[in-house]
Amino acid sequence: MLWTILSIVVSVAALGVAMYFYRWVKALPSAGSEIERIGKLIRDGAFTFMKREYKILGTFCGVVAAIILLVYPKPVWTAEGNALHNLGMAACYLFGATLSGTAGVIGISIATIANIRSASAARDGLAPAYAAGFRGGAVMGMAVVASSLFGAGVLHLLTGDSNAVMAFSFGASSLALFAKAGGGIFTKTADIAADLTGKVELGIPEDDPRNPAVIADNVGDNVGDVAGMGADLFDSNIASIAAAMVIAASLQGGNMIELLFCYCALGLLASILGVFMARIGKSGDPGRALNGGTYLTCGIFAILAFAATAICDFPMRVWGAAMIGMIAGVIIGFTSELFTGDDKKPVERVAKACQNGPAFTILSGISYGFLSALPSLAGIGLSALLAYKICEPVGPGYAMFGISIAAIGMLSVVGMIISNDAYGPIVDNARGLAEMCGLGDEVLEITDKLDSAGNTAKAITKGFAIGAAGLTVIALLGAFKELVEAANATINLNLMNPLVFFGALIGAAVPAVFSAMLMLGVDRNSRVMVKEIHRQFDNTPGLREGKVLPDYGKCIDIATRGAIRELIPAGLMAIVMTLLVGLIGGVNAVGGYLMGNIVSGLLLAMLMSNAGGLWDNAKKFIEAGNFGGKGSDAHKAAVIGDTVGDPFKDTAGPSINTQITVVSLTSSLAAGLFAAISLIH
Amino acid sequence: MLWTILSIVVSVAALGVAMYFYRWVKALPSAGSEIERIGKLIRDGAFTFMKREYKILGTFCGVVAAIILLVYPKPVWTAEGNALHNLGMAACYLFGATLSGTAGVIGISIATIANIRSASAARDGLAPAYAAGFRGGAVMGMAVVASSLFGAGVLHLLTGDSNAVMAFSFGASSLALFAKAGGGIFTKTADIAADLTGKVELGIPEDDPRNPAVIADNVGDNVGDVAGMGADLFDSNIASIAAAMVIAASLQGGNMIELLFCYCALGLLASILGVFMARIGKSGDPGRALNGGTYLTCGIFAILAFAATAICDFPMRVWGAAMIGMIAGVIIGFTSELFTGDDKKPVERVAKACQNGPAFTILSGISYGFLSALPSLAGIGLSALLAYKICEPVGPGYAMFGISIAAIGMLSVVGMIISNDAYGPIVDNARGLAEMCGLGDEVLEITDKLDSAGNTAKAITKGFAIGAAGLTVIALLGAFKELVEAANATINLNLMNPLVFFGALIGAAVPAVFSAMLMLGVDRNSRVMVKEIHRQFDNTPGLREGKVLPDYGKCIDIATRGAIRELIPAGLMAIVMTLLVGLIGGVNAVGGYLMGNIVSGLLLAMLMSNAGGLWDNAKKFIEAGNFGGKGSDAHKAAVIGDTVGDPFKDTAGPSINTQITVVSLTSSLAAGLFAAISLIH
Repeated sequence: MLWTILSIVVSVAALGVAMYFYRWVKALPSAGSEIERIGKLIRDGAFTFMKREYKILGTFCGVVAAIILLVYPKPVWTAEGNALHNLGMAACYLFGATLSGTAGVIGISIATIANIRSASAARDGLAPAYAAGFRGGAVMGMAVVASSLFGAGVLHLLTGDSNAVMAFSFGASSLALFAKAGGGIFTKTADIAADLTGKVELGIPEDDPRNPAVIADNVGDNVGDVAGMGADLFDSNIASIAAAMVIAASLQGGNMIELLFCYCALGLLASILGVFMARIGKSGDPGRALNGGTYLTCGIFAILAFAATAICDFPMRVWGAAMIGMIAGVIIGFTSELFTGDDKKPVERVAKACQNGPAFTILSGISYGFLSALPSLAGIGLSALLAYKICEPVGPGYAMFGISIAAIGMLSVVGMIISNDAYGPIVDNARGLAEMCGLGDEVLEITDKLDSAGNTAKAITKGFAIGAAGLTVIALLGAFKELVEAANATINLNLMNPLVFFGALIGAAVPAVFSAMLMLGVDRNSRVMVKEIHRQFDNTPGLREGKVLPDYGKCIDIATRGAIRELIPAGLMAIVMTLLVGLIGGVNAVGGYLMGNIVSGLLLAMLMSNAGGLWDNAKKFIEAGNFGGKGSDAHKAAVIGDTVGDPFKDTAGPSINTQITVVSLTSSLAAGLFAAISLIH
Repeated sequence: MLWTILSIVVSVAALGVAMYFYRWVKALPSAGSEIERIGKLIRDGAFTFMKREYKILGTFCGVVAAIILLVYPKPVWTAEGNALHNLGMAACYLFGATLSGTAGVIGISIATIANIRSASAARDGLAPAYAAGFRGGAVMGMAVVASSLFGAGVLHLLTGDSNAVMAFSFGASSLALFAKAGGGIFTKTADIAADLTGKVELGIPEDDPRNPAVIADNVGDNVGDVAGMGADLFDSNIASIAAAMVIAASLQGGNMIELLFCYCALGLLASILGVFMARIGKSGDPGRALNGGTYLTCGIFAILAFAATAICDFPMRVWGAAMIGMIAGVIIGFTSELFTGDDKKPVERVAKACQNGPAFTILSGISYGFLSALPSLAGIGLSALLAYKICEPVGPGYAMFGISIAAIGMLSVVGMIISNDAYGPIVDNARGLAEMCGLGDEVLEITDKLDSAGNTAKAITKGFAIGAAGLTVIALLGAFKELVEAANATINLNLMNPLVFFGALIGAAVPAVFSAMLMLGVDRNSRVMVKEIHRQFDNTPGLREGKVLPDYGKCIDIATRGAIRELIPAGLMAIVMTLLVGLIGGVNAVGGYLMGNIVSGLLLAMLMSNAGGLWDNAKKFIEAGNFGGKGSDAHKAAVIGDTVGDPFKDTAGPSINTQITVVSLTSSLAAGLFAAISLIH
């Protein structure tokens, strides 16, 4: 139990680091009352949304917990001892949901402080502004990883039951699914409405205080990108631990659960060290600081894990699997950068296509998005295959365990990755505050530089998150099989079994339907908001001239109500489809369903994230003065591309990861149910 | 052998019917020298393209035939008898390619006559114009189905070897893949360039003779929609026969190959009867005539097949599987209509979204495209499952045979379906001729009505073609397994096998990459053509005023050269990836690869075909006077959506079917190779 305890210790230390950074950022000076006032508007908007969202999610989680209490793993009415067992499961579920929710609140809380501090610090130069942004992000990074590892460690210590960790993970995932979908809808509703009315119709710059949607847009960065992405990686992290635990529990000999906690603890430790060392050097390049920190963390983890494996006499092949995962994660992340980086060919080509009008913008962006799927999918497939093969000689069952350890290896540096990622919306907000409060061009130049590095970090994180989800769900498929066999049922996941094929076809359609529902939600909501902005401009004398301030609250309210209304149906659809397929076709159909879901989900996630990033950067490339620059026809076409890309890359695309994970966990939890009752066997 | 011989007899009869219709259409009067002159321009353009395309494809097929001769099924240098066997295989391959090519030539030849006759007949009313268009389409329908069945029957009679039919099918498919891709690139290059410059920039109507791209656009309808779609369904039809034969050959007892020829012969017979009966009644509704003919054909086939099954004492359960396939095909076809029909909700909603600008047009269209995938994929999965289950009790191996018979059942009415489909571009061309030759508004009204029915038929055919390809490739996966086992190798297509997963991830990315390559090709070519159109308008005095005719040949040449250049790489990529995966991961990886390819291919095909159809009809809905009508901002947004949809629905989307089939056939043919040599086992 040494490593389980140590991982709890490291988690507590990481929480301490998070608290230290929180205070450090909070203690930084602010630039005056105006920035405080607007910062407070953003903060209040974000908390209003979170409160209303969590109220709905609380009800949802309560209902699910009640269902678990009644029937999971065994109906309370069938035997006397069941009630207590079910109560434990329901508690684990709620524990997961609560921790995941808390991490989101912590993230929002620090992000809406760090944005002010970073904008203020930008008056003193790049380095202090960067530090405020990055350390703010690190609070989120540390809090997410520490709380997930803490939860898993405590539950393992208390129960020793991998199913309890599975229920914990399901709690975190179901919250993450809705948080991501809700935040994604909120942020893009506001972003699209603000851009279309402000930049396109009225010709006022981004973040102009006259735009009624401008505060909602900045709120959206926080609830979508900070809370949403944090929940997503919380979910992947804990799901990868749960999958590895289930498979490890089925292994003969070798204390593989210890090894898994060992790697998680060392990964978090490496992230702590990495976060402290990711300083901006003399180069003054924030992008290099972020990437340098990631590489450093990887290096530290590799060495620490090697040493621990040697000292504790764990099989060295398992360490190899972890390294395969880690390297694959970095490569997949940087592949996304290859397709979306603003100094790379695809961005230039899409920008060039904009000169021929919006239709070509869309066609070329989608085409490059399609192309970008191949290296990532091949990378995930290859790393799973290698991890399997490298661990196969260790012993029976170790091959599949290798895949789950590759996922753990990939997620080892997740603390650092989330820190980098949360940095993005913080400095994006800082830019907005600098613009709205008129801090001057020099400050804007610095925040622009910080923001640009943030966008790149965001693209890398997305690729990384998709890769991590990919390996995790492959491992979860292995866990699903173990759980079916533990329920004494037979499973035949052969492709020649028509139930497998039937499931695969339906599973493949689910991410498409899920994405469509989210995008149609954004579409509906932003149209409502555009109407509201028009109403304000038409009915508020002096607003156009900047003499009167708009009613920001109205737009925040529209985005909130819309997101709340849309967030449940899409997620519920994915869960209900899983149950339907299982109840019709049993465990074999579910196996195929997971396969189809994973394969098509990863494909669509890559397409949408990368096409969206590409359009965003093509627009920026043109705005930098290429192909006619701002205001040209090419620019107008690029703005249309960017608007299509917004829900692609920030609503649907990154939510698919979570959808896949939730579906996989639902299947695992309901494995016994499907094995017992199904229409066709 | 009775039914094999009978199917050859029915094929010859169908060829006779084709010839009768050909002469009947040709004997109709034409409207004068102007229409003849322009008709000849279209015909010459189409044949110029076909000649150049077939020259390239001839070289390609020659190279493949040479490779087959050298190494397939066994290298000539390993034993003396191999050379003769290989020669036979190469001959079968070339036979398939030649027949498929010939069907394309026949189709183009009649379509470029029927367009003139239909436009001319429109002066006498709707019914004669419809008859000219439909009977012209029926020439293609009969020729395609008859020649594929004839080829399969003759080869079976001569060799009795299902591998020979497999090679025949591969020949047809590889030609179809390139014909479809090349035609699809040609047609959309011209269509997009003509629309963008004509409708959007210059504000001249569709098919205006002043537009230098107008003839190329009409040529494109023929080479893309007539020759391309014909080749596609030729390919599906023959591939379904080949798959069923391979599986039937492995069955113990029961003459299932006879049954399969029986169903094919009766399906063709039913199509002949259906084609004769699909007349336009008193209702004067061409859409009803087309659909009525399809239902009638289905009914006739069902009764004939039932009677034959009872009389010949075939298992009645197999008849059930055929019925499941047939009904599924019709349902899937009409589901496409639900999402793309211009009196249905999605079209209205997308048209409404156009009011908010092009970004919303694109987002809503893609969203509905995603939604449309679920019913079709579920339909394919469910029919495969039911066909499997219904045939399982017949005997060992019959379950998988049931799936292949469902594909045969679905394709039983293909003669009728192709006739309906080829009708579309013929009347589309007739409309163009009526406009260009100034036949007057009354004639235009009639051709518009015919054209609209053609668009609906086209949407149904696409859904049907995707469904048919889906069932066929599932059956081909079964055939692949049989062939691997026939090569005395073991195969483990369990999802827990990481090679299967590795293959699935790569297979899923291939249709995306394939689509991207085709779309980027269209993108590149149409930009070149737009430049040429601008050049002509700028440098030709009097062209704008209609005093001088433009240089049509230049645009035809650009489309031709572009299509020829782009058609090989995408198809070759799919084939090479298949070989790579097989040589790296062996038969298990290829099994997964096929699964991933099928699942993601069907998903993307549905998305692209239906989103494209939706945008097209949303534009027409607005042009009919809704949401501001022609020239409004909503209309401009709809035109952008339609332009994005063009390569979606007419280049990439429908080519994916063929890509999946070709990859499946490549795998089956190379099964022995992969079993013998691969990097990982």
